[in-house]
Amino acid sequence: MARAAEPPSGTRDFLADEMRRRKAAFDTVAGVFEHYGFDPLETPAFERLEVFAGKLGDEASALIFKILKRGVHEASGEADLALRYDHTVPLARVVGTYGNRLPSPYKRYAIGPVWRADRPAKGRFREFTQCDIDTVGSSSPLADAEIVWAVHDGLTALGVEDFRVLVNSRQALYGLLEAYGVPDEQGTAVLGSLDKLDKLDPAAVAEELTGLGLAPTTAEELVGDVTATDVDRVRKQLDTTERGRRGLAEIDRLLELTAGLPEGRVVFTPRMVRGLDYYTGPIFEVVARDYPGSIASGGRYDGLVAKLGGPDLPACGGSIGIERILATRAAEDDGSAGGLDVALTVLGAEDTVMRLAAELRTGGLRTGVYLGSSGKLAKQLKWADDQRARLVLIHGPEEQESGEVTVRDMHTGDQTRVPVTDAATHIRARLP
Amino acid sequence: MARAAEPPSGTRDFLADEMRRRKAAFDTVAGVFEHYGFDPLETPAFERLEVFAGKLGDEASALIFKILKRGVHEASGEADLALRYDHTVPLARVVGTYGNRLPSPYKRYAIGPVWRADRPAKGRFREFTQCDIDTVGSSSPLADAEIVWAVHDGLTALGVEDFRVLVNSRQALYGLLEAYGVPDEQGTAVLGSLDKLDKLDPAAVAEELTGLGLAPTTAEELVGDVTATDVDRVRKQLDTTERGRRGLAEIDRLLELTAGLPEGRVVFTPRMVRGLDYYTGPIFEVVARDYPGSIASGGRYDGLVAKLGGPDLPACGGSIGIERILATRAAEDDGSAGGLDVALTVLGAEDTVMRLAAELRTGGLRTGVYLGSSGKLAKQLKWADDQRARLVLIHGPEEQESGEVTVRDMHTGDQTRVPVTDAATHIRARLP
Repeated sequence: MARAAEPPSGTRDFLADEMRRRKAAFDTVAGVFEHYGFDPLETPAFERLEVFAGKLGDEASALIFKILKRGVHEASGEADLALRYDHTVPLARVVGTYGNRLPSPYKRYAIGPVWRADRPAKGRFREFTQCDIDTVGSSSPLADAEIVWAVHDGLTALGVEDFRVLVNSRQALYGLLEAYGVPDEQGTAVLGSLDKLDKLDPAAVAEELTGLGLAPTTAEELVGDVTATDVDRVRKQLDTTERGRRGLAEIDRLLELTAGLPEGRVVFTPRMVRGLDYYTGPIFEVVARDYPGSIASGGRYDGLVAKLGGPDLPACGGSIGIERILATRAAEDDGSAGGLDVALTVLGAEDTVMRLAAELRTGGLRTGVYLGSSGKLAKQLKWADDQRARLVLIHGPEEQESGEVTVRDMHTGDQTRVPVTDAATHIRARLP
Repeated sequence: MARAAEPPSGTRDFLADEMRRRKAAFDTVAGVFEHYGFDPLETPAFERLEVFAGKLGDEASALIFKILKRGVHEASGEADLALRYDHTVPLARVVGTYGNRLPSPYKRYAIGPVWRADRPAKGRFREFTQCDIDTVGSSSPLADAEIVWAVHDGLTALGVEDFRVLVNSRQALYGLLEAYGVPDEQGTAVLGSLDKLDKLDPAAVAEELTGLGLAPTTAEELVGDVTATDVDRVRKQLDTTERGRRGLAEIDRLLELTAGLPEGRVVFTPRMVRGLDYYTGPIFEVVARDYPGSIASGGRYDGLVAKLGGPDLPACGGSIGIERILATRAAEDDGSAGGLDVALTVLGAEDTVMRLAAELRTGGLRTGVYLGSSGKLAKQLKWADDQRARLVLIHGPEEQESGEVTVRDMHTGDQTRVPVTDAATHIRARLP
């Protein structure tokens, strides 16, 4: 049964190099969020099943991993717990659980795994890390702007270059539909079609809109407006309705409050819709030259916390597509991290070797001691090479007699002998 | 339904302060293990159910959280996955999965949650972090010694003081029983009784041993030997059998190879048994003055990796009781971490405030901007105080007019005015 040796379908083992790369990325983003005054939050891997029940749509609900009851109840075949599907439902629960004991507004980030029983595919996993930042309890435009700044800085710290933050507003989108006389009940479907403009060509989307009941000229004009390079076309339409003007004001405020970011970074993009229907205010999406799709997104979602079972508080947030970024970056990795600074061979005098290793570690060096059974130097040097060691120490019979140690540079092959007592200082000086 | 607002029974939400304390502890230990050349490993939160089946005892198997099959199979009420119960079963699986692609020996650490459906109690959780370090593929005594060193240094780095590493050997224990003529099939039961010597008094344990069929004098002598302050009593007994001599040699080698640790740190302790019956060689347990029970433990467990479904490789390892250490330390925490370096009030001129905040963050300061709706300075100062801010910036109407900002020290109440353009430099200089 070879299959049993693999991790479960859609999950991954993270071995040394990948694990170090992931941790470095998570710590980098966490560091940025901390500078913005966001607090870390970690909720349990599972919640009571009822916490999710009725909170997610049917599609999402089908993807929940459910945990069987235990003990005598196991035979019932019923579940009472569910693995975390996202960080938003637990956030709503936490805001409800701790209420006034949390800072107000509650600014938190969560970087950790979520689980979805999706069909595994290239780049789609059943266990993957989500990286969320949210502010609950503020309706200030400063809160929206702060999320955009923090996500921007997070991406920059991750080394993402040439990216743009596309911004729009749900109010503006609905205002635009109003301007075109699209009835409210068709709004979601129409926005769903417009959302496809990054994949389909404008004519196909216009056709889809006609299929939804829009007059052909209306459909064409609407598509023309939102795809026009000159956003003034949309601005003019928005100016004709109350809701449109409110949306436009939201967008302009967000642009003003993020004006300190590099020129051209934040761009009003009328055709950017964001699929999720819980957004209520400004929305954003980040696209970058070297990455497929969007690498971050977010927006204001007043009302959602209450819908998810928490108190009725305004909220906004964003999410960095850290798995997507890591996947793209993995290809660039040179695998240089994680090697040993010093490898110690063992040819007798183990006590001296262990003490010397301890001294090197205290000096901050990543130090490995040969733990195999071979007494042959060549074999031990091969081990040191496999460990990507930069320096190797040899304390063989000759060196033991003279109280010395041979230091071998694994890049150049150069060897130097130094007294055992000076070895740590000597090595420390040779490594940057 | 107030209960729904709590995290599931036996689990915890980690809010800001606790989360920061935990992460700092995990990173500290990971840093030490990295210096010893151990590699990080993270396996999925769940494994295929068959990976655990028959690998754990009945007692442990009953504590496994099982995940219901999905989709059309959900109705069957059957499980196919199980949450990670420990880090050892996944380690055995990984060694089997990757074989030669792993370094040899494979030295890895794992710091992450495991899940057990235990009855929750004070200090006993259903989701808790285990901190394991193991070397698979080496039978060298250096490997055992290295684990003791690494655990020792990990505890020291965590700030644990006044601790002792009690060492013994399974071979020695069995040799001792042999010396007393205890039949092999009674070995486990007798060792189980001796293991209680840290809770029961010697007479009670001797009585238990008599109950197991040992002659009263044998029972008394055995208990007397292992509890004697003079370990020479046990050494003499061990010297009478082949197995005992082998065990004694293991212990002495471990003492020699850890002689570089502070005097008296590592102590041969004949009565230390370690409950788990998979240990085969040297074993250790760490006790500390300020902590209840043991705070770390480990030993050699040749044969276990094969028993758990991996290849037949020798192995040894240790585990730091990080949850116990964190629980004891939580009481000492002064809650000073995590406050804001600078809090910015908002009294108009939001754009200037956002830019100034960005400048401060770039300078490495944890900077928060007021996101509430109150225009009253007193209320905003209260928010800053809640955020444990050290400095508050006020850019009110007066300051806006003069292009200045007021810097208020929240400890002393002192206020200084500086030009907006100099503010970041001024503040950077005031904070260490």
